[in-house]
Amino acid sequence: MNPLVQIIAIILLAKVLGELVERFGFPSLIGEVAAGIVLGPAILNLVSPNEFIEFFADIGIIVLLFMSGAQLNMKTFAKSEKAGLVTGLAGVAFPSAFGVAAGYLVGLDLYECIFLGIALAVTSIGISVRTLVDLRQLKSDIGMIIVAAAVVDDVIGVILLGILTTLASGIGGFGTIALTLVIIAVFFILILTLGKKIILWSFESSRSARTHEMPYSVAILIALGTAVIAQEAGLHYAIGAFLAGLILGDSIRSDRLLYDSLADFAFGFFTAVFFASIGLYFSFSSDSPSIPFIILLVVVAFAGKIAGGYIGSIWFLRDRARSLIVGLGLSPRGEISLVVSKVALASGLISATLFSSVTVMVIISIFLTPILMSRGFNRLHSRDGPPA
Amino acid sequence: MNPLVQIIAIILLAKVLGELVERFGFPSLIGEVAAGIVLGPAILNLVSPNEFIEFFADIGIIVLLFMSGAQLNMKTFAKSEKAGLVTGLAGVAFPSAFGVAAGYLVGLDLYECIFLGIALAVTSIGISVRTLVDLRQLKSDIGMIIVAAAVVDDVIGVILLGILTTLASGIGGFGTIALTLVIIAVFFILILTLGKKIILWSFESSRSARTHEMPYSVAILIALGTAVIAQEAGLHYAIGAFLAGLILGDSIRSDRLLYDSLADFAFGFFTAVFFASIGLYFSFSSDSPSIPFIILLVVVAFAGKIAGGYIGSIWFLRDRARSLIVGLGLSPRGEISLVVSKVALASGLISATLFSSVTVMVIISIFLTPILMSRGFNRLHSRDGPPA
Repeated sequence: MNPLVQIIAIILLAKVLGELVERFGFPSLIGEVAAGIVLGPAILNLVSPNEFIEFFADIGIIVLLFMSGAQLNMKTFAKSEKAGLVTGLAGVAFPSAFGVAAGYLVGLDLYECIFLGIALAVTSIGISVRTLVDLRQLKSDIGMIIVAAAVVDDVIGVILLGILTTLASGIGGFGTIALTLVIIAVFFILILTLGKKIILWSFESSRSARTHEMPYSVAILIALGTAVIAQEAGLHYAIGAFLAGLILGDSIRSDRLLYDSLADFAFGFFTAVFFASIGLYFSFSSDSPSIPFIILLVVVAFAGKIAGGYIGSIWFLRDRARSLIVGLGLSPRGEISLVVSKVALASGLISATLFSSVTVMVIISIFLTPILMSRGFNRLHSRDGPPA
Repeated sequence: MNPLVQIIAIILLAKVLGELVERFGFPSLIGEVAAGIVLGPAILNLVSPNEFIEFFADIGIIVLLFMSGAQLNMKTFAKSEKAGLVTGLAGVAFPSAFGVAAGYLVGLDLYECIFLGIALAVTSIGISVRTLVDLRQLKSDIGMIIVAAAVVDDVIGVILLGILTTLASGIGGFGTIALTLVIIAVFFILILTLGKKIILWSFESSRSARTHEMPYSVAILIALGTAVIAQEAGLHYAIGAFLAGLILGDSIRSDRLLYDSLADFAFGFFTAVFFASIGLYFSFSSDSPSIPFIILLVVVAFAGKIAGGYIGSIWFLRDRARSLIVGLGLSPRGEISLVVSKVALASGLISATLFSSVTVMVIISIFLTPILMSRGFNRLHSRDGPPA
C-alpha cells in the first residue's frame, strides 16, 4: 500500500476506535493502539511497520510530550521535583527486584533474570502522559508526580539499557555508563540554562514576524529540535520535547489560538500514528508463551510499579488512594521495554518465548492502565467531590 | 543526516528566507524555494531529495490546495468556470505553439520540438495558488480565473503527458488517451455528486464527536483521501484536494478556530517543505546550457502564457491590465514540466542540455512570476484604488 494510504487508514481507524472507546468512558488511546493491532500483522496485515510510519510516530511522541510540557506551569511542576525523584527511583527499584525474583522463581537463568528486571523497570512515558491528558488529570498533583517520576524513570532506563548492552555485547562497561551519566547531566544543565534562553528568545522573536504562521512553525521547530538533541545525548526524544514544552508553556498558554492550533497538530494528526504504531508492532507469535507465565509477568509488572509508586509518593501526598493511583499511573510499559527485549533477543540473551511473553505483557499493561486509572480517578472524585 | 534533522533544517531555513523575502515586499514562497536550492545539491549539498522529504512535500501540496479551495465560495467559483475553461485552453495552446516554433527556429528535431511544446504547456498550480495566497488575491476575480484555468490546464497536462509517454515508449496510443479522458470525466462527476455527499456527511458527523480534535482530523483525512483518489484517476494530487476544499469551504470557514488551525497545519509546516523541495531538485548541471537559449525559453514561456491568458480572459474581464495579470499568473512552470522533462530524458527523446535548459527555465519562472505579479497588482491598485 502507498504510504499516504497507510497513514490515512491508520489515522482514520485510530480516530474512529478512539471515539468509540471514549463513548464507553475510557481513554481514547486504547482505541488508537487497537487500530494498530487491527490493521497490522496481528490481524488484517494491511499495514506493516515501516519507516514512514515510524517517522510520523516519532513526531507524534515528540509533539505529545511537547504539548504536555506546555500544559504545565514550570514553577508548579518544579515543586513535584523531589517527589518525582523519590517516586521514580522507587518505581524502578521495586519492579526490577520483583522481575528478577519472578525469573528466579520459574527457573530462568541469571541473564534472563537480569533482563526481566530491566524490561519491567521502565514506564512508558507516552502512555502515562496520554492517559493523564485523556482523563484531564495532567495538571493535578497526582498527574505531575507521575510525569516527573516518568522522566526520572526514563533517565534510569537509559542507564539500564547501557548495562544490558554491556552484558549482551561485552563492549562498554562501567566507564561507558559513567560517560552516559555525564552526558545526560550536561544535557539537563545546558537545556535549562543556555537552551532556555535560546528557546525563549527565538519564540519571542517569531511573534514580530510578518508571516502569521511564524510562532506556530517556530514552536514546532523547537519541539523537534530539542527532541533531536535529547536523543543525541542518549535520552528518549520525548524528554527534550517535554522540557522545551515546559520552558515555553507560559508563552504558549497565553495565546489561546496558538495553543489550540498546536494541540490540534499533536492530537488531531501525529499522536494517533504514534499510538497506532505500538499496536502495529504487536503480533500473535507462533512461539505462543504460556498463559500462567504471562499472568505472573502482568501481576509482577503492576505490583512492582504500584508498590514503588505508592512507597515513593505516600510521604508527599499523605493519602493512600492518591499514592495508589500514582503507582498505577507508572504501570504502563512501552517502547523502551520493547527495545530492551529486541536487544536481548538479538544478542541471544533470552529465548523467543520470553521475548513474546514480555511483548504480550506490554500490550496488556497498555490496555489495562487507562481503564484502571479511569476507575481510580472516578472513585477518588466520588470520595472527595469533583476535581477543581 | 537523520531525516528529522533534514526536515527541521528545511522548514527553518524556508521560514527564515520566506520572512526575509516578505520584508522586501515579495511573496514568501520565493524564499522557501531558495531555501531548497541553498540546502540542496546546487549549493551546500546538506540535504538531497529523498522519500521522506517527498512524502512531506506531497502532503504540503495537498493541504495547500485544500486550504485554497476552502477559501473560495463554491458558487462564486463556479461563475469563473467558463472563463477558466477558455483561459485554460488558450493558456495551453499559445505556449505550446510558441514552444514548438522556438524549437524549430533553433533547429531542434521533431520530437524535441513536440517535447518543448508539452513542457511549456502546463502551469504549476502550486506556485500560482501560493502566489495568490501570499498576495491575498486568491478570492479576487483575477485570482479565481487563474485557479480555474490552472485546474483546466492540469487536466490538459495529463493528456499531453499521455501523448508524450506514447511517443517515448510506443505503448498506449490514442485508445489509452481516450480511456484517460473517460476516467477523468468519471472522477469529476463522482466527486461532485456522490463524493460531495460523503464528504459533507463525514465532516458534519465529526462535529458531534467527543474527542475535540475530530473535525480537524476528518478535514485532513478528507483532503488526503480525495488527493489519493485524484491521483488514482491519473490527475495531480492537488486537483482532488482542491475540489474537497471547495466542497467543505463553507463549513470550514464558518468555524474560525478550525479554519485557522488548518491554515497553520498547511502554511506553518507542510507547504514550506513542498516549496523547498522544488529547490532541492535543482542543480547547476555540468552540461551547462547556452544562456541565449535559456533566455529564449524564458521569453517564450512567459509570452505564451501571457498571450493565452490575455486572449482567454479579456472577453470576461474586459480590462487589459487585469487580463495581463491573468496571463502572468499562469506563467510559473513547476512539477509537471519537470516530470515531463525527466520522462523525455530517460527515454532518450531529448538531450541532457535541453533537459537542463528546461529546468533552469522552470526555476526562473518560479522566481520571476511572484515578483512580476506583485508589481502587477500594485499598479492595478494604484490605478483603481486599494482592493475591497
